[in-house]
Amino acid sequence: MYFREMMEHVVQPKLLVNKKKCLANISRMAEKARTHNLIFRPHFKTHQSKEVGEWFRDSGIAKITVSSVSMACYFSDSWDDITIAFPLNPREIVRINEIDQSINLNLTIENKEALIIARQKLKRKVGVFIKIDTGYHRTGIWHSNYSEISTVKQMMEETKLMDFKGFLIHAGHTYSCSSKAEVMEIHDESLQRIKGLRARFISTCPGLLMSYGDTPSCSLADDFTGIDEIRPGNFVYYDLMQVQIGSCSLEDIAVAVACPVVAKHPERNQITIYGGAVHFSKEHILEDGRKVFGKRIQNPLSFDNRAANIGSLISLSQEHGILELEDPSEFGEIKIGDLVFILPVHSCLAANLLPLEIV
Amino acid sequence: MYFREMMEHVVQPKLLVNKKKCLANISRMAEKARTHNLIFRPHFKTHQSKEVGEWFRDSGIAKITVSSVSMACYFSDSWDDITIAFPLNPREIVRINEIDQSINLNLTIENKEALIIARQKLKRKVGVFIKIDTGYHRTGIWHSNYSEISTVKQMMEETKLMDFKGFLIHAGHTYSCSSKAEVMEIHDESLQRIKGLRARFISTCPGLLMSYGDTPSCSLADDFTGIDEIRPGNFVYYDLMQVQIGSCSLEDIAVAVACPVVAKHPERNQITIYGGAVHFSKEHILEDGRKVFGKRIQNPLSFDNRAANIGSLISLSQEHGILELEDPSEFGEIKIGDLVFILPVHSCLAANLLPLEIV
Repeated sequence: MYFREMMEHVVQPKLLVNKKKCLANISRMAEKARTHNLIFRPHFKTHQSKEVGEWFRDSGIAKITVSSVSMACYFSDSWDDITIAFPLNPREIVRINEIDQSINLNLTIENKEALIIARQKLKRKVGVFIKIDTGYHRTGIWHSNYSEISTVKQMMEETKLMDFKGFLIHAGHTYSCSSKAEVMEIHDESLQRIKGLRARFISTCPGLLMSYGDTPSCSLADDFTGIDEIRPGNFVYYDLMQVQIGSCSLEDIAVAVACPVVAKHPERNQITIYGGAVHFSKEHILEDGRKVFGKRIQNPLSFDNRAANIGSLISLSQEHGILELEDPSEFGEIKIGDLVFILPVHSCLAANLLPLEIV
Repeated sequence: MYFREMMEHVVQPKLLVNKKKCLANISRMAEKARTHNLIFRPHFKTHQSKEVGEWFRDSGIAKITVSSVSMACYFSDSWDDITIAFPLNPREIVRINEIDQSINLNLTIENKEALIIARQKLKRKVGVFIKIDTGYHRTGIWHSNYSEISTVKQMMEETKLMDFKGFLIHAGHTYSCSSKAEVMEIHDESLQRIKGLRARFISTCPGLLMSYGDTPSCSLADDFTGIDEIRPGNFVYYDLMQVQIGSCSLEDIAVAVACPVVAKHPERNQITIYGGAVHFSKEHILEDGRKVFGKRIQNPLSFDNRAANIGSLISLSQEHGILELEDPSEFGEIKIGDLVFILPVHSCLAANLLPLEIV
């Protein structure tokens, strides 16, 4: 088979990235942003790759989001408008100061304490967003705590090197949803809260930006009233978790992990693969109460992932994975040393761990 | 405080390795191996570090175990007796052939199919172990399948470049135990099965080696009858999972992850840290039905980890961790930008993800 020959050089677990599917995912989201008149600032934490990043540029994207100072440094030689959507870590201000001055760099700040340190140590001009919590409770100032928001905003406006941009919101609690209806409930609540925030601050700050975005909401919602910018990231690859949430279909998943078969155990209908927790991470979904760490597909080049019921990754140790086959008759065909292809549960974490190959 | 000053240069999550504790863990296990007249071939997959590896050499260790060809390559310029305790991946035979010929390299093979490929492609002399399953069901030939074992053994003995060494056993199902009694039950069963295997094959192979070893069994057992070699790895660092299994005490854990504080939320008694799934992996333990991804200690230099009830890491996203404090009055002391120190749930996976610093 042509594809198998193409894969002859793959000796260790590798993330195969289906470029056509990625382009379709990017163009669908870019189109949605255009339709709703939103700035599209995709999150690059999912792929962390300059090569994949270029596909976004081809779709007209000029602004990006990252989740660490390290990623900002990595992308700073190819992108000139970067938001670090992670609360400012004072220990990295020296590194932030070293990022090329010509780059529009936006920081995220969520409290006075960090802001005071930033004022003392920052040596470059930065845009600043205030992180707002609309219900996820990971971080940010509570959306209706107007006095605290006002204080931080005013301090930013008084700081010469800071250009106050607006509010940064991440409704990450959509990741624990299991249906479109649940995602929409969170999204509608977020919209209400964003509306209140905008009403309170727009008069003193006409250029205020509301930056929003997680993959489930941005994939499923059709109402973005009050939002100016979206920052989804995972959608470029999608994964099994997003299928379970309802953000995408199996066919949209654009990555698969190629893993060599190292042992076969027909007596328990299992194959042992070279592919473990150091390749997939230990993220799982539950299916009928059973942990699933990945699902096998026939061919990652194909545009239909229908054949994704041909096996489940049911266990991971450091380097080993246990793949249960759907069809025991396959034991006749699968050879030791063959590659199997696994859709990951969480593509961001798998991409962080694996070398990448575009197919 | 002196230690805090020492840590001024730490800007991102880092694995702090307490050398004194590691040396104590190594010397305890080395002593146990000596007492029971066992070859001690520690598994280096946990630390994956040449520097930490040298501490083993100082304890008289000359033979090591690794779990990938990549690790064998990495350690091959400083160690000359290496066992790859992972089923042979035919795609990596070319890399295996490139490993310095002067190194005693042992491979693990568990089936005829892999063996036939190895016979065709191997170009260097190797020792070979047959992987035996004594109940873990991850991989290996079932311990009482004597006909299959005999066939593979004979094929190895007929292969010029292969030197049959013995049987390699890993009772990894001890990792799901939650008491010493449970570990001992598995260990006793393993000993019985090893005894049967030895009785069947020792007459035709007087030099037969029984290589065994997972951290729980090697930490807790005092009977190693029929075993010639042990290969525990995790014990050098230990972790919260091993405490839960009963393999060690909190005081034995020799690593902590240093994480900068980026936000404080006294209203829900939580701190947000720079330290997420890309630093800890997503391995968790359950405490009263709640997922715990790590536990905070006061000072990783201290030999007592008693203060390990001062906070639990209850949630991880890609870069963020949510730490719940035990004592709300601490909010007065903890500053944004401070480091907190977290005992990991699974030190092998954290060590795989983090830069390391010896303290």
